[in-house]
Amino acid sequence: MEKIKARTLSGFMELLPGAQMQMERIMETIRSSYSLYGYTPLDTPLIEASEILLAKGGGETEKQIYRFTKGDTDLSLRFDLTVPLAKYVALHYAELAFPFKRFQIGKVYRGERAQRGRFREFYQADIDIIGDTQLDIANDAEIPAIIYTVFSRLGLKRFQIRINNRRILNGFYAMLGLTEKSGDIMRTVDKLEKIGVDGVRAILVDDLGLSAEQADEILGFTGIRGTNDEVLHALEGYRGRNELFDTGLDELITVTKYLGGFGVPQDNFAVDLTIARGLDYYTGTVYETSLLDHPEIGSVCSGGRYDNLAEYYTDRQLPGVGISIGLTRLFYVLGEQGMLNDKVPMAPADVLILPMTEDLSAAVELGTMLRNRGLRTQLYTEAKKFKQKMNYADKLGVPFVLFLGEDEINAGIVSCKNMKSGEQEKLSPAAAADKIAAYVDEQKHVPSVLDI
Amino acid sequence: MEKIKARTLSGFMELLPGAQMQMERIMETIRSSYSLYGYTPLDTPLIEASEILLAKGGGETEKQIYRFTKGDTDLSLRFDLTVPLAKYVALHYAELAFPFKRFQIGKVYRGERAQRGRFREFYQADIDIIGDTQLDIANDAEIPAIIYTVFSRLGLKRFQIRINNRRILNGFYAMLGLTEKSGDIMRTVDKLEKIGVDGVRAILVDDLGLSAEQADEILGFTGIRGTNDEVLHALEGYRGRNELFDTGLDELITVTKYLGGFGVPQDNFAVDLTIARGLDYYTGTVYETSLLDHPEIGSVCSGGRYDNLAEYYTDRQLPGVGISIGLTRLFYVLGEQGMLNDKVPMAPADVLILPMTEDLSAAVELGTMLRNRGLRTQLYTEAKKFKQKMNYADKLGVPFVLFLGEDEINAGIVSCKNMKSGEQEKLSPAAAADKIAAYVDEQKHVPSVLDI
Repeated sequence: MEKIKARTLSGFMELLPGAQMQMERIMETIRSSYSLYGYTPLDTPLIEASEILLAKGGGETEKQIYRFTKGDTDLSLRFDLTVPLAKYVALHYAELAFPFKRFQIGKVYRGERAQRGRFREFYQADIDIIGDTQLDIANDAEIPAIIYTVFSRLGLKRFQIRINNRRILNGFYAMLGLTEKSGDIMRTVDKLEKIGVDGVRAILVDDLGLSAEQADEILGFTGIRGTNDEVLHALEGYRGRNELFDTGLDELITVTKYLGGFGVPQDNFAVDLTIARGLDYYTGTVYETSLLDHPEIGSVCSGGRYDNLAEYYTDRQLPGVGISIGLTRLFYVLGEQGMLNDKVPMAPADVLILPMTEDLSAAVELGTMLRNRGLRTQLYTEAKKFKQKMNYADKLGVPFVLFLGEDEINAGIVSCKNMKSGEQEKLSPAAAADKIAAYVDEQKHVPSVLDI
Repeated sequence: MEKIKARTLSGFMELLPGAQMQMERIMETIRSSYSLYGYTPLDTPLIEASEILLAKGGGETEKQIYRFTKGDTDLSLRFDLTVPLAKYVALHYAELAFPFKRFQIGKVYRGERAQRGRFREFYQADIDIIGDTQLDIANDAEIPAIIYTVFSRLGLKRFQIRINNRRILNGFYAMLGLTEKSGDIMRTVDKLEKIGVDGVRAILVDDLGLSAEQADEILGFTGIRGTNDEVLHALEGYRGRNELFDTGLDELITVTKYLGGFGVPQDNFAVDLTIARGLDYYTGTVYETSLLDHPEIGSVCSGGRYDNLAEYYTDRQLPGVGISIGLTRLFYVLGEQGMLNDKVPMAPADVLILPMTEDLSAAVELGTMLRNRGLRTQLYTEAKKFKQKMNYADKLGVPFVLFLGEDEINAGIVSCKNMKSGEQEKLSPAAAADKIAAYVDEQKHVPSVLDI
């Protein structure tokens, strides 16, 4: 029979078992962190009617979307988790309690040009809080607190959640009489890290037609640096000149005030006036998260406050605040940087039983006992030579192997080998279980990411 | 702005938060049960090249598949988890350890005609063991042991894993000189429950051209009933007449022998000669699982032994054995039958903090303390009336509410309300945390499915 060459599509991540275990652990950390704040998990279809997903329409989205027909139906694969959330909230409004706090970890699809580190199928891990008509600003402090929990539980310390408020920016541009250009200006200022102060000034003056004074004023403003208190203090100097600005500043002060109570150390967040987020979608607080030792990676987790989640589907005003981790890319980048901790248990089992007899009854029963103790136990069943059995154990990377031959069975013991130390001892099955369980408990505290 | 009507596609399950929590708990039970046996989790793309998924081609699959092009690429959504596994094993063969034990819980797509209880997007939860060239028969006993673990951990007792071996059937048909018709005969016998003995006899004689004696012999054979020992004993009477039969019988005896050691009670499995599984794919052991009080549901979990997983992609002989739970349908059916346990915690949080002051600092800090204790804690942030806050707590279904007003803050206490009993008491924050933690621990043992 002619064979078809097995392949996985370019831009689609498919991990080997060890890496997949690492990924699972990261996902579990995100899931449990999101849950800890009382957010409810959602799972929506990967396919939606195209009219739903493309309600906003236009731009890159429409070009990148996976769209097709089945029968007479015009279908698309979701390209983010926000639009399906908007549909969900509009559709199930009457059955939900507001503020509606949900998280979702799921795959999304974008037909981007394939290149290294870019994915067409990738996980997003989103949290959002949706209010009915109103949503208190305190929520804007909870979101970065959750992100802090996620990243610190993963094992990272040298990361910083950077916070700004678009009302402050818009209010400031209004002070300068530049309201109509504020979108263009923000998108320009957003490039500060990439093209530097002079590059930004050039665009502001040459392309956007600002006066040199206006450009300097803007660069002076976005150049405000210091501790969070110092930045907030500097911003107080602009108070009273524009209502929007004052509102934004009050919001930023509130968010900053609560972050400490949420347990976020000062080192892990920074008020940063250069953060604007490109999307017009955001109206207040905006977030980016950077790894301090890897600024080249850019933001690994971004989001913000929006005024109207589901405006394409309902007249109800549903303001929200949320953030998204681009999980697949983050996993890829952490791997590339050598930041994934290979001390994390990546074996599928805590213990492998290698029977040395033809009849497997004793080994089967030993396995059942170990599983009843909660240990992930694999039973090796094949009639291979000893060396091949050990090769299998090595390849699996299990921390413990239990040998069970005639002698052991007759003596009611097992030979327990610690695969890392090489130490081997004869133990009662219960003592072996204790030993393995103690090791497994220790491993639970190994963080999956290295803060190097 | 004109609104687009929010809707979810027909045949696509989208759950409300409480039901989703129940579903998550079931998935977690499956995941942890599969893991307990040392299987590694896999996650493969939902999209594959069409040539990969349709390598086998033909039949219902091709009609139901979601197939489309993006750019020049002919793509399809996976319709099961077995074909992607075959591709995965063929592609990554050199990097895998054999026997390769994996599980996968993921969505698959079939464009079936929409009808109640039929889904176009649905979860499968698969386990498979893939051997390199050979795979010991003991593995065929592990698969039903895992299924027993899953179902009993969900809370079911009245279920039965029914086991047969196609070699026994094929060997038996060979004894009757009916080898060439064995496929047709098996598909006919498979209908016994649906159309009864007379219906089957009519097809065997009228449509397949068997003699009345042959038909009676077959119906006598598949009518063998009794305890597992009795059935196996009756089968011994046919031994020595056909090699394939004898091999199949030896395999069935081995599987039955090990099941006890795996901890599967006699009541939960039955040797059943009527089980054949329609697919020619299966060559040895076959499984079906039925809920004894709901025979009308049919098999909720099926699978078997196959000779050659990846024959379309590689010359390597890769025998395997596996089983699949049709999770979305199972969840739907359990719900329809009223078998989902509404005692399972379906609230997103263990405790809700209702602040009664404008400044939320104390409430934020209380939340942080509770989360550090591992309690899923939601903070209510909105400045609403007391009644609206309580409505929110009710709608969420949280077991505990902590009120925090000026008085409580000044006294360093919280007012803790048990939402089920209505009992309210003033406690220190630590005592409240203890109380909630004790309740949460209890709830961990509530099974998600009722055995009614």
